Amino acid sequence: MQVEYINPFISALKNTFQTMLTCEARRVSLAVKSSPQATHDVSGVIGLSGRAVGTVVVSFSAEVALEAASTMLMMEATELDDDVLDAVGELTNMVAGAAKAELEEYELSVSLPNVVTGPGHEVHFPSEVTPISIAFDTDWGPLSLDVGLTAIREPVVM
Amino acid sequence: MQVEYINPFISALKNTFQTMLTCEARRVSLAVKSSPQATHDVSGVIGLSGRAVGTVVVSFSAEVALEAASTMLMMEATELDDDVLDAVGELTNMVAGAAKAELEEYELSVSLPNVVTGPGHEVHFPSEVTPISIAFDTDWGPLSLDVGLTAIREPVVM
Repeated sequence: MQVEYINPFISALKNTFQTMLTCEARRVSLAVKSSPQATHDVSGVIGLSGRAVGTVVVSFSAEVALEAASTMLMMEATELDDDVLDAVGELTNMVAGAAKAELEEYELSVSLPNVVTGPGHEVHFPSEVTPISIAFDTDWGPLSLDVGLTAIREPVVM
Repeated sequence: MQVEYINPFISALKNTFQTMLTCEARRVSLAVKSSPQATHDVSGVIGLSGRAVGTVVVSFSAEVALEAASTMLMMEATELDDDVLDAVGELTNMVAGAAKAELEEYELSVSLPNVVTGPGHEVHFPSEVTPISIAFDTDWGPLSLDVGLTAIREPVVM
């Protein structure tokens, strides 16, 4: 994966957290993601297709998911219920949408966000894709962003 | 979700299992998926976008994943390693690809398959989508297919 892919996702996440949640997401590390893949408690997953195909995964610690949902819903969320999972999906969707707008040359379209839960869950990428993983810290706790994208060199004419 | 969406996915799964694995997948039940969502041990997840957006999830019991991978790789797979997860992703991709071909009026494109593992993991759909869940049985064990798709009524012209 080329490095120009990743910066729009990083700024999309930081901007989404700042704008929607008034929460500063500070980048802690950036690494090529290797197996086994550590994730947090709740992961928003969204597929991208177009002149590149891939996936964005935003993985929230439970405390970040609850605080983020509380802010968006303007009520205190205390458990990972459907409202909180919808908020996680919606934030993931905003990150993917903002990054897509910056990567217009790839004519990306996004699928619906799914949200994966379960202690110790892992979201594996196909082995031909090398995802990049970025760890963030916030005043609420940690989260991470994984992006795996592969350019399709020639558009397929059917 | 309209019912005409679902049949292409059901036949895609049955045909993929028959053709790739010489394994008969028998439909056991079809239900509107309600929370909490039971899945099996390993789930292939693939996003769809175009004139409809959504997700296909094919959830394999460990025994089906191992037997399927053993058949595809022509070697005995005994643990859920990266090769097995890649085989699960590839089968999910084939199911999505075959269904997409049947649903050409929606001009669907598929993202890359991701594979989710972890005991008790759940893959939640956005609450505005009503996924349909189909349980299958095989001589190797059970699997399930969840499809949540929403038509976009008018193509967006940017």
